[in-house]
Amino acid sequence: MENTITDSIKITPITTSKLDKVDFDNLSFGKTFTDHMFECDFKDGVWQTPQIKPYGPLTIDPSARVFHYGQAVFEGMKAFKDDKGDVFLFRPKDNFNRINISANRLAIPSFPEQYFMEGLKQLLKIDEKWIKSGAGNSLYIRPFVIATQACVSAAEANEYKFMIICSPAQAYYVGDVSVLIAEKYSRSANGGVGYAKAAGNYAAQFYPTNLAKKEGYQQVIWTDADTHEYMEEAGTMNIFFRINDTLLTAPISDRILDGITRKSLLEIAEKEGIATEVRPIKVNEIVKAAEDGGLKEMFGAGTAAVISPIKAFGYKGNHYEIKRPEKAFASHLKKALMDIQYNLTEDPYGWRVKL
Amino acid sequence: MENTITDSIKITPITTSKLDKVDFDNLSFGKTFTDHMFECDFKDGVWQTPQIKPYGPLTIDPSARVFHYGQAVFEGMKAFKDDKGDVFLFRPKDNFNRINISANRLAIPSFPEQYFMEGLKQLLKIDEKWIKSGAGNSLYIRPFVIATQACVSAAEANEYKFMIICSPAQAYYVGDVSVLIAEKYSRSANGGVGYAKAAGNYAAQFYPTNLAKKEGYQQVIWTDADTHEYMEEAGTMNIFFRINDTLLTAPISDRILDGITRKSLLEIAEKEGIATEVRPIKVNEIVKAAEDGGLKEMFGAGTAAVISPIKAFGYKGNHYEIKRPEKAFASHLKKALMDIQYNLTEDPYGWRVKL
Ligand SMILES: Cc1ncc(COP(=O)(O)O)c(C=O)c1O
Ligand SMILES: Cc1ncc(COP(=O)(O)O)c(C=O)c1O
Repeated sequence: MENTITDSIKITPITTSKLDKVDFDNLSFGKTFTDHMFECDFKDGVWQTPQIKPYGPLTIDPSARVFHYGQAVFEGMKAFKDDKGDVFLFRPKDNFNRINISANRLAIPSFPEQYFMEGLKQLLKIDEKWIKSGAGNSLYIRPFVIATQACVSAAEANEYKFMIICSPAQAYYVGDVSVLIAEKYSRSANGGVGYAKAAGNYAAQFYPTNLAKKEGYQQVIWTDADTHEYMEEAGTMNIFFRINDTLLTAPISDRILDGITRKSLLEIAEKEGIATEVRPIKVNEIVKAAEDGGLKEMFGAGTAAVISPIKAFGYKGNHYEIKRPEKAFASHLKKALMDIQYNLTEDPYGWRVKL
Repeated sequence: MENTITDSIKITPITTSKLDKVDFDNLSFGKTFTDHMFECDFKDGVWQTPQIKPYGPLTIDPSARVFHYGQAVFEGMKAFKDDKGDVFLFRPKDNFNRINISANRLAIPSFPEQYFMEGLKQLLKIDEKWIKSGAGNSLYIRPFVIATQACVSAAEANEYKFMIICSPAQAYYVGDVSVLIAEKYSRSANGGVGYAKAAGNYAAQFYPTNLAKKEGYQQVIWTDADTHEYMEEAGTMNIFFRINDTLLTAPISDRILDGITRKSLLEIAEKEGIATEVRPIKVNEIVKAAEDGGLKEMFGAGTAAVISPIKAFGYKGNHYEIKRPEKAFASHLKKALMDIQYNLTEDPYGWRVKL
């Protein structure tokens, strides 16, 4: 088995690269794509021969189920290049596992591990020049699956397309953000699909986020839909709090994504002797800590930004500022994680995977 | 304004119709499409000139936001033909209003009423031969909007495509169904998007529905995500109960779709002197009524099937059969509604709209 799949990826290279036309110093996130893409169709009950081919538009029926019933899941991961030109992935197996966890919840057939890993590696090899070395530079990788079957009855599809597209990226967020704690809207329900990277979870957040923006906040921190009393996560990031010298984050659940950055930061913190607590976190506890000065930090954690420090939050009409401490966990942990990602340090965890 | 839009729809007719090739006696729901489709793009902040053109595949970037963030909403409506060959729509204004309510919740720009109505009418005119007269025959109409902007950052799109596609239909469901009352999984949260016809709401239901199917049930009846104590709705239908001679249905909320069939049935029932109650309905109340014989009927209500009688339900490992009464509300109300839809009777409500 091991080799048959590698051999069988059908590769159609581009004739002329777009690489020269890209201004790598002025990349807007997620808008520029590399020369090639990986594509694999599910049909007649099996995943067909995978292909790597020139990046370009899909031809898809207007009745494709993805447009009507939202059967779509995705992943977000990155490739990093060190100064010697070696390329590394960060915990790619976890992304592979997670896309199938998401797929399973949305009644999408599992994608085979070898197709995923080999597809990824060969795609990165053919587009290797698109990966720039240097801090903050990376190649953002977007594996995703969509239901392509042409049928508008509300049931799962029997045809799908698995794809990997790649986009060169600089740092995602600029500056510290202000967030609004959700009091009315919610992101996910018990027994719902919040733990999956399901496309529909994201569309549901834009409107409430726009309302937050009107009040001067860039992001919403979601709370539990039942009571809005507990902190859950941000739109594309898990969320951490530092109260005095303890690092807090909510446990994952069927409402919260099992973020790879989140669990990596927890491991690093533990290894470095930072006290961590993974437990339900009441909004009131954070408000109280903000008031009495115990709340030293608050930050989001996710692949795109690694860590995104939060400088203020709004809740019930009040605005709370968080003064960044001199020795912030955020900057320390971010550096520790990025040093591993960029091959600038040892990787005692075995997270780095060389291409 | 009134006429400019009508005039401005750009029409490209097909050269050869597919009509002859369709077996109208053996239609599988949602798989056959008429000769034409309506398409209108949102770009540079405005909806562009609408088009009616041959039904065919879209060319769409793999990074189109609909694939990644699920920004997609839809409607489901029907056109009916009477024996004289006149064509009727049923409360089309309500579908128009609802697609914009859904769009608003998903941060999708509103579609103009005149484009919707004129697009619909002209599309039906050009494909009129696809609408067959006779009970149960109809043309299922699917307006929908998808985010087409090529960008994989998690934010609302600035480019969209509004479309209407049509599929000839016979009766949707066959026979009475058995349903499972949800105890663990859920469809929507308070503060979520359950009241919107958002694509992602549907994908989330397939997996739990498959589990129900393994236990011999065809559909799931969703309960509230907090407690699972209250009846909400089915996957694509609102739900009614008859206890003795009273017709019950849950009130709409931010978790429940404001179904057009539901509200029409309520109006008809009230006009005909059937006692109705719109109030939260405890699962336990229904279980008790099933046990003591008070539960006479249970049925789903939606555009596709009009009314779908439920013959049994499962809950907490128990199975409850419902014996169809001789004079069922379900059959009576279904006939009353369809008689209006097919122009077989007066329409005191003003619901029927002649093409
Ligand atoms: C909802 C949500 N939470 C958290 C995260 C962070 O997860 P990860 O660290 O694996 O990128 C993401 C982004 O991937 C996300 O979409
Ligand atoms: C979730 C949901 N509930 C109820 C309905 C029934 O609504 P309507 O009667 O307007 O078709 C539908 C289908 O449209 C639906 O998708």
